[in-house]
Amino acid sequence: MMDANALGESLYGFVRELYPICRSITGPGLRETLAAIGRHVPLALCEVPSGTRVFDWEVPNEWSIREAWIRDGSGRTVVDFRDHNLRVVNYSTPVRARMSLADLKPHLHTIPERLDWIPYRTSYYRDSWGFCLTQRELDALPDGSYEVCIDSTLGPGSLTLGECHLPGQSRDEVLIYTHACHPSLCNDNLSALAVATWLAARLAGRGDKRLGHRFVFGPATIGSITWLAHNEDRVANLRHGLVLASLGDAGGFTYKRSRRGDTATDRAAEYVIARRGGRIEDFSPYGYDERQFCSPGFDLAVGRLTRTPNGRYPEYHTSADDLSFVSPRALAESLAACEEILDVLEENVCYVNQNPKCEPRLGPRGLFRTTGGTSPGEFEHALLWVLNQSDGTRDLLSIAARSGLDFSLIARAARALVDVDLLRPAPALGPR
Amino acid sequence: MMDANALGESLYGFVRELYPICRSITGPGLRETLAAIGRHVPLALCEVPSGTRVFDWEVPNEWSIREAWIRDGSGRTVVDFRDHNLRVVNYSTPVRARMSLADLKPHLHTIPERLDWIPYRTSYYRDSWGFCLTQRELDALPDGSYEVCIDSTLGPGSLTLGECHLPGQSRDEVLIYTHACHPSLCNDNLSALAVATWLAARLAGRGDKRLGHRFVFGPATIGSITWLAHNEDRVANLRHGLVLASLGDAGGFTYKRSRRGDTATDRAAEYVIARRGGRIEDFSPYGYDERQFCSPGFDLAVGRLTRTPNGRYPEYHTSADDLSFVSPRALAESLAACEEILDVLEENVCYVNQNPKCEPRLGPRGLFRTTGGTSPGEFEHALLWVLNQSDGTRDLLSIAARSGLDFSLIARAARALVDVDLLRPAPALGPR
Amino acid sequence: MMDANALGESLYGFVRELYPICRSITGPGLRETLAAIGRHVPLALCEVPSGTRVFDWEVPNEWSIREAWIRDGSGRTVVDFRDHNLRVVNYSTPVRARMSLADLKPHLHTIPERLDWIPYRTSYYRDSWGFCLTQRELDALPDGSYEVCIDSTLGPGSLTLGECHLPGQSRDEVLIYTHACHPSLCNDNLSALAVATWLAARLAGRGDKRLGHRFVFGPATIGSITWLAHNEDRVANLRHGLVLASLGDAGGFTYKRSRRGDTATDRAAEYVIARRGGRIEDFSPYGYDERQFCSPGFDLAVGRLTRTPNGRYPEYHTSADDLSFVSPRALAESLAACEEILDVLEENVCYVNQNPKCEPRLGPRGLFRTTGGTSPGEFEHALLWVLNQSDGTRDLLSIAARSGLDFSLIARAARALVDVDLLRPAPALGPR
Repeated sequence: MMDANALGESLYGFVRELYPICRSITGPGLRETLAAIGRHVPLALCEVPSGTRVFDWEVPNEWSIREAWIRDGSGRTVVDFRDHNLRVVNYSTPVRARMSLADLKPHLHTIPERLDWIPYRTSYYRDSWGFCLTQRELDALPDGSYEVCIDSTLGPGSLTLGECHLPGQSRDEVLIYTHACHPSLCNDNLSALAVATWLAARLAGRGDKRLGHRFVFGPATIGSITWLAHNEDRVANLRHGLVLASLGDAGGFTYKRSRRGDTATDRAAEYVIARRGGRIEDFSPYGYDERQFCSPGFDLAVGRLTRTPNGRYPEYHTSADDLSFVSPRALAESLAACEEILDVLEENVCYVNQNPKCEPRLGPRGLFRTTGGTSPGEFEHALLWVLNQSDGTRDLLSIAARSGLDFSLIARAARALVDVDLLRPAPALGPR
Repeated sequence: MMDANALGESLYGFVRELYPICRSITGPGLRETLAAIGRHVPLALCEVPSGTRVFDWEVPNEWSIREAWIRDGSGRTVVDFRDHNLRVVNYSTPVRARMSLADLKPHLHTIPERLDWIPYRTSYYRDSWGFCLTQRELDALPDGSYEVCIDSTLGPGSLTLGECHLPGQSRDEVLIYTHACHPSLCNDNLSALAVATWLAARLAGRGDKRLGHRFVFGPATIGSITWLAHNEDRVANLRHGLVLASLGDAGGFTYKRSRRGDTATDRAAEYVIARRGGRIEDFSPYGYDERQFCSPGFDLAVGRLTRTPNGRYPEYHTSADDLSFVSPRALAESLAACEEILDVLEENVCYVNQNPKCEPRLGPRGLFRTTGGTSPGEFEHALLWVLNQSDGTRDLLSIAARSGLDFSLIARAARALVDVDLLRPAPALGPR
Repeated sequence: MMDANALGESLYGFVRELYPICRSITGPGLRETLAAIGRHVPLALCEVPSGTRVFDWEVPNEWSIREAWIRDGSGRTVVDFRDHNLRVVNYSTPVRARMSLADLKPHLHTIPERLDWIPYRTSYYRDSWGFCLTQRELDALPDGSYEVCIDSTLGPGSLTLGECHLPGQSRDEVLIYTHACHPSLCNDNLSALAVATWLAARLAGRGDKRLGHRFVFGPATIGSITWLAHNEDRVANLRHGLVLASLGDAGGFTYKRSRRGDTATDRAAEYVIARRGGRIEDFSPYGYDERQFCSPGFDLAVGRLTRTPNGRYPEYHTSADDLSFVSPRALAESLAACEEILDVLEENVCYVNQNPKCEPRLGPRGLFRTTGGTSPGEFEHALLWVLNQSDGTRDLLSIAARSGLDFSLIARAARALVDVDLLRPAPALGPR
């Protein structure tokens, strides 16, 4: 297994590889990104045609862009899409025109309080066009006539979803959704794309699991809506889920609870993230794709893991969310936290004590000290806790919480008790 | 609509008008008071004959008083009912006698620690008589013989209840009970009589409401018991209720919860009163008529709103609870707080999201910003919260609480969503 | 009734009487101890033969010991069982041998950090032998050859349980379990043996009770397991229970909750112990016999009362837990606390208000002041609380908690209301 440094560098390398691609919610950039992921994990692609009804929405026309620039009266190019993917408003309709600065200005977006940053703007569901530039660039534009060109196509095509399914022994699954539509923004969301890809690759190599894992890569909002519309029959088996985003910045972790707020996913993530010094936040219906998974008609046990959440760092949705804003170290630590959460979910079973009346004898089973009168050690305490609490209704996380012992110790005690036939998994293995 | 100053003066004027009347739990003073209320709101009167069994109680004989005095040996009147209604123990039996000071003293009530205040004493359910005077007056009485006269009548008659019913579109009702039996005491309870009367008059003028409102004016304890005994068939429709009392003094608001403690009435009142800096208290079976509504056989969602509660201010049940103890400003503010609570109850419905699977598109419905990439505003947050939480089990108050947004903003978002058919009221409109 | 000083001395006298006996989990010392208890209370003895299967366990062979010593090369006795019962590892198999110090050492137990204390060690479920001595004694042993003798018997016999049953009017019972197996250790557990014996004796003299009481004296762990295995049909009637241990030291009380944590036993003990400045601890599956009663297959409402808990004082399981470690005063106070808990359990009934609609009239029943206008006293408050809350689901402890009034005042109010037929016990008298 790679060490954390090497792992961080490999994650960062994938971010660097994906950074130049101009992604959107449909189109060639998204397909190119999924193809890159597919070189690391087995990825099934699904193309959903434009116009397909998905609940209250419709899959939009496909967008592709070749060229976009603004030239001043002297023919000098003052804004050029080739130097940054953010320069064109995502989903801009084609335009070729000459106009005055006054007429042009409503189409120009800047961040007034950040002179040298380019904002990220989109116009998915309204026909319009525009350019993004720095405030300093805007301020320098002289009055006069400008030539404007956006050479884009917006027409029937399809929306692409990528899915990596790693089956488990049971029908229960963990969903991991990562949005793959943002253009050159490193933290949001190349960081999570890299982490999710590596997570899937490493899980795939780790042999049989109780839980299946389903990694979905697609556009934000319309992607999760489309996936849910096409996978309603799978929802019953989605026992846990995580939306991953913004996992490369220097901030601490933030876990946002599911709508229900106390699912096993929530408790597992809280256990892991609190021990890593992270913050736990209640659910709110604003954010990333958890909004769809936690809509009242689904109400799934899907939480969200980020470092600094969307909108709470100045670089968010600007050109400053670049390769310098994320680090190999943060990426590697994010991957480790995700793996730890999945490990806890995997082991967090409800068991039934097979000798529920009085304590069983642990000594003859090789699980207990034999000279009486001294105090039991931590592992013996863990055995007693697991036996006492395992009535088929309490999972190992709740036993860890009540006992104050580490989950890993509790899980080890449970395995030891299963080995001597004192414990069996409850029919419904764990809580949702 | 009147401004707060004018409103306060009009409320205070009604207190001043009612102050001289000698009220009791039955009799002409109570009727005169209800007649005054009936000049402001449509009031149905109900006379319940003495001796009528009402649960464990019996409607008492009716009491009326014409004259009461004590004269000393020289014939000088030393205590006279004509100068203050509190001077005679309420429900005193008639007496005409001459007696020594020693024999008289057991019939004289004072407040030893307040030399110049007259106490308020009653003797509803025991045949006896007495006078109330100041400690200073008592101390000044020389030994000797006194002539005593109480010209009262205590005999078969009836107990009077006044009821103002404002029907709503639904069968669900809000009960507002205000005790109307105390003689010349301004805060307890002319203040609440004025507030309740104005509240009813203003509601009557505000057009159709979802909820009906039922204002009941009657004596404390025996009045609410009698009303409940005669209206058991209405109890099922009493979804909310407030006992109003002591709403004119300078203290902050105190809301006392219903027996259940977490009814929609409680949550609405707590929301309003906490934002006005008031105190919230748990239920206790001592106080005003909430005791009857919250007896275990009814257990209604009836809380109590006061300013300073009974017994917690020295002027309570003394002649110092006079016209100087209440203010137009406090009365107007109390009226505003009551209206706000009723408004919240009116709007606090459980809704069902009509597009529960994933978020609906708000932009095409004119409810959302169209350029993506920026953060939604507060109203858009409110829309998302209402949609996410509206599964038919959570009322708008609970959504306001969970979101941290103002109830008024949440209610406005709900109305906007109803207008575009994204929301419908749940079959059981709201919690009790 | 004896005063506290005399009571403390009598309890201490019983501890002193039992101190010299060499107890174990079976055998003559245990029988002698139960015989001593039986001179104070009616005690039924039960002998369960060695080899009897009790759940996952087997009743062990019976152990008796006559003599045990170590002699050095010169024939001098360096360790002698006759001077302290702890000197031989409890349940040592017989041995007679000569061996070098090196070969002997694995059989010698000390407390390295306490030079002059002898540890208490057992070897119940593994065939072995050993001696306990002080570290100073061990350090003084010269190299050389030693003669070792343990003249013990370990063979088929029986395990002895003593039970004092005091029937109540109802089938519901309180179980009090006290372990009686530890040899010369005063706090653990002669203190609790004395307290439980006196508790039973005093209860037996106090006439009819609603609840039955069942005092069981037996060995730790295997004793409670054996009792449960032979009394499974009684478990349904065990509504409350306490394990008593370590009740003679100078520390404050510690009540450890049952597995369920909120049973009526827990609430009663918490009420009493918190008012005595004691600590309340959550359940854990380590400790004394509560482990068996709270195993998931029984999950009984059995908590544990100690002063300083097991393992949290240095004298625990050493020769320093001697007659100087316990005091008459602590013993008397422990007895008083136990009696108080049993009294609360006895009175803690759920009642049903027989006049649940509105308040009943208390004045005509002699329970309320007759002159109105003044505030009710504490007892009148208690009457109102009991009437308001008594809907058959809330016990007097919960009414005391909600009202903030003393349990004794609430119980007195309930008795007064029962006397005037306003209250009846609920069909299920109280919570478990």
